[in-house]
Amino acid sequence: MALKQKIVMLVGGVGGAKLALGLANLQPAPQLTFVVNTGDDFWHLGLKICPDMDTLVYTLSGMVDARMGWGVADDTTHVLGSLATNYQVDPWFKLGDRDLAMHLLRTQALRGGARLTDFTADIVIRLGITARILPMCDAEMPTIVETQEHGKMSFQEYFVKHRWQPILRQIRYTGGKLAQMSPEVQAALQEADMVFIAPSNPWLSIAPILAVPNMRNMLCRLHAPIVAFTPIVGGDAVKGPTAKIMRELNLAVSAEAVAEFYSGMIDGFINDLRNPSLRAQGLRTVQLDTLMTDLESKVGLARAALDWMGGWGS
Amino acid sequence: MALKQKIVMLVGGVGGAKLALGLANLQPAPQLTFVVNTGDDFWHLGLKICPDMDTLVYTLSGMVDARMGWGVADDTTHVLGSLATNYQVDPWFKLGDRDLAMHLLRTQALRGGARLTDFTADIVIRLGITARILPMCDAEMPTIVETQEHGKMSFQEYFVKHRWQPILRQIRYTGGKLAQMSPEVQAALQEADMVFIAPSNPWLSIAPILAVPNMRNMLCRLHAPIVAFTPIVGGDAVKGPTAKIMRELNLAVSAEAVAEFYSGMIDGFINDLRNPSLRAQGLRTVQLDTLMTDLESKVGLARAALDWMGGWGS
Repeated sequence: MALKQKIVMLVGGVGGAKLALGLANLQPAPQLTFVVNTGDDFWHLGLKICPDMDTLVYTLSGMVDARMGWGVADDTTHVLGSLATNYQVDPWFKLGDRDLAMHLLRTQALRGGARLTDFTADIVIRLGITARILPMCDAEMPTIVETQEHGKMSFQEYFVKHRWQPILRQIRYTGGKLAQMSPEVQAALQEADMVFIAPSNPWLSIAPILAVPNMRNMLCRLHAPIVAFTPIVGGDAVKGPTAKIMRELNLAVSAEAVAEFYSGMIDGFINDLRNPSLRAQGLRTVQLDTLMTDLESKVGLARAALDWMGGWGS
Repeated sequence: MALKQKIVMLVGGVGGAKLALGLANLQPAPQLTFVVNTGDDFWHLGLKICPDMDTLVYTLSGMVDARMGWGVADDTTHVLGSLATNYQVDPWFKLGDRDLAMHLLRTQALRGGARLTDFTADIVIRLGITARILPMCDAEMPTIVETQEHGKMSFQEYFVKHRWQPILRQIRYTGGKLAQMSPEVQAALQEADMVFIAPSNPWLSIAPILAVPNMRNMLCRLHAPIVAFTPIVGGDAVKGPTAKIMRELNLAVSAEAVAEFYSGMIDGFINDLRNPSLRAQGLRTVQLDTLMTDLESKVGLARAALDWMGGWGS
């Protein structure tokens, strides 16, 4: 029996979770570890909320609201409704009732002194997820955005309250001095046969992970090949503000600019069929159909990526 | 215009809240302050829960589930359902979704350093309640019960998880050294024209209030008359474990035994029509219909009590 391939993927929210589901449904099953962005985690109503983590967990457990790509399917908002109606609390951040169960458990665990890594491991077992899911680090590293209209904002204020409409001037990844890579993330990367960077927003979802002290260094020196997936398809983002942000950062909205952002770290880049081909020296590239519209296309993209890398030789 | 009568009532859960609602609906409206038992407050799922406080607040705001006498009307339990179904959390303590809004706000406020007194004052305003509601104290004073079957238990374990079925050996009112009467409770008692003790469970609801340091002393020395309402009607408790507890404490299940428990502190005792008349020296007593089955009978009992005391002279 062949040893399982050990795949680590750096991942953010909805787009990355789609590919994660594709990987999780591969046969034969690889040994999967997801290293998840926690830069958009925040405290709200006294609860610790980890949006990217929850999107991935709900997706892999089958609980996700498939239409939204986040939150729990068939959820209600009675708690939030009561907060708004009875107590005049602004319900700007949507929290479903069934979703709140997760936030309550996590808040209780963290208040009790647990690491986010351990809490997540426990949840993964309770939900019967076979992949390993690791927060990028246990310390808080909130992403702060500087906007033209409102100055400095927390990530969720920018992303949810203002629906990523303010013009972005700068993004800061904070907490670097206190934060450190967990032993679990270090071990996963060291043991990986290959590392993927999900088709998540490079600046809002992947860069926070790379900002964990020593993360980028470790990835740059890793023996295992690192392959990034394009979040840009046909000159636009599949979802969310990636293209808008690239324009605001004075970048061309192209897969090439994304590959450039990861340069020095990645060995391969998976471009989309609909994009112009890449001119990137010393980088292996392939053009695949990266639009993941159903489970079949998610698994198909994961399969195609592995097949392509299998042909690299050693 | 006559000055408003200042009435303070010591109160526990459902039974006391009924009389509170009667007082709140009197015309002309007295100036009401409720001093509420917090001995059965506890932390659960990371939330600070104050069952007696919430019963009173929900009752006075009109939010209460009238059939149960506690909780919020038409509430759902989707959060609790998700905790049980997805995360294998034992849902032994019922928390409605709309009820959770209160617990979230309170937990956030207390974690932020607010006194329970201030949080409660804020909630009372938000819900448009005209009465003043004060926790008996701000420090935690959990009531601990010693049971024959299970030894020491927290109050809610005894009361809810085991449905007050274990045989009670002893009740302890803890936290006495750290706890102190708030300035608000002191002032309310000093300014009161009369003090009521609600028809709540004397040992589980009222005794914890009396265990706040200096509370019993202050009440015993108070100029304003103090009048207790019987929780025993026709040889049994109207609701809950009062009669069962009296038997376990080797007391007769009678209004007389309740009056005896309060002796030295109360000036008057409101007995029920259905009970034998009291033999209690130096205590003014009256027999009224104390069963509060609808709003009219609640207001009627409050009215009758005030009328009776109005005839005492000065």
